[in-house]
Amino acid sequence: MSDETETISQLRQAVADFVDERDWQKFHTPKNLAMSLAIEAAELMEHFQWLTVEESIDRGSDPVRRGQIADEIADVCCYLLSLVNVLDIDLAEAVRSKLVKNVAKYPAEKFRGRSE
Amino acid sequence: MSDETETISQLRQAVADFVDERDWQKFHTPKNLAMSLAIEAAELMEHFQWLTVEESIDRGSDPVRRGQIADEIADVCCYLLSLVNVLDIDLAEAVRSKLVKNVAKYPAEKFRGRSE
Amino acid sequence: MSDETETISQLRQAVADFVDERDWQKFHTPKNLAMSLAIEAAELMEHFQWLTVEESIDRGSDPVRRGQIADEIADVCCYLLSLVNVLDIDLAEAVRSKLVKNVAKYPAEKFRGRSE
Amino acid sequence: MSDETETISQLRQAVADFVDERDWQKFHTPKNLAMSLAIEAAELMEHFQWLTVEESIDRGSDPVRRGQIADEIADVCCYLLSLVNVLDIDLAEAVRSKLVKNVAKYPAEKFRGRSE
Repeated sequence: MSDETETISQLRQAVADFVDERDWQKFHTPKNLAMSLAIEAAELMEHFQWLTVEESIDRGSDPVRRGQIADEIADVCCYLLSLVNVLDIDLAEAVRSKLVKNVAKYPAEKFRGRSE
Repeated sequence: MSDETETISQLRQAVADFVDERDWQKFHTPKNLAMSLAIEAAELMEHFQWLTVEESIDRGSDPVRRGQIADEIADVCCYLLSLVNVLDIDLAEAVRSKLVKNVAKYPAEKFRGRSE
Repeated sequence: MSDETETISQLRQAVADFVDERDWQKFHTPKNLAMSLAIEAAELMEHFQWLTVEESIDRGSDPVRRGQIADEIADVCCYLLSLVNVLDIDLAEAVRSKLVKNVAKYPAEKFRGRSE
Repeated sequence: MSDETETISQLRQAVADFVDERDWQKFHTPKNLAMSLAIEAAELMEHFQWLTVEESIDRGSDPVRRGQIADEIADVCCYLLSLVNVLDIDLAEAVRSKLVKNVAKYPAEKFRGRSE
């Protein structure tokens, strides 16, 4: 399986199975999952903590570092999917809907090459 | 489109198009994207900041709050997808591979109903 | 030394000396320090990740956990002091000034016992 | 008052008074305060989100930005002080004790000019 063929629901189900098999639903409240997501996001950030913005681009080319970064990204993704599972939110719909708002908020012609 | 039918690549492409149309690749270094992910994760957490763990379950039922939470989840997801786009990491593969490690680290029989 | 007798400047100086002795000023840019502060805040949060809000009160009574929590609090404080050192901001003045704003924003009679 | 003359206990007391006057102790559990600290740390980080590491140095010179950054730093500090108030931890002692450990972990001669 890969991003080309896997639907978001299939990935959601893989995470749900892992949680079910451990009876971890009781810990997986929205508050705890939001905290966990923030904790994993910080662990991901740690890989780039002292680098210049430019050095951070090279960091992903080192195979060992790359594997560690992929693991942290996976942790973030697992908690994100667990959160949408618990809240019963369609992730693709949420993203598509937010992108529509962002297109209106950041018109391409005005924000081309500018962050603010 | 919805999680049932949309592949991860399709969602990645939607985010990539939004970034390309604004010429924002220069801002989207791994360091900046990891920071942005952590910032959005904190904004998501803010919705549950003062709630008891139990109250946080109800919070997702309020339609207004639910929409706001879905928007924050979308923001987290957009930066996550932008990061795997920049690093050229297959997200489904990273998640599947991390789940295999987690199955070994947290054997179901030992961790059933226990967080540690 | 203790909180009763130590001025904030004395604690700021202790952190500045540690940084100077390692020639770490070049890493201690505001961007990196803000990231580092967020990373340490997440590590502190990790101690309370799966606890109910009530259990989190007891967590500080366990002597081993208490020491670990104190260490994480110290890490957060060190980066906070390093950041005000770099930006040349008076921390006491910033806090006093923010409390004045918060007193106006959250009038005691209106917000007594209410978080929002 | 300023960092030169104010003891840490005096600043802790100012924060405790603000909390007491609003009867907010019930919200100020360690779990909630650790979350709040992480949320404010992310808001602080937001000021440097898209900047190069070098640009982040200049950001503190702009008077308007400087005031906003000082406000975010104050928010982080208030939650940090509230947390040590709740846990009854001496902050100066925690920092001094952690610096002793860090001196052993990062010997100056080995780590001079190196982050790892």
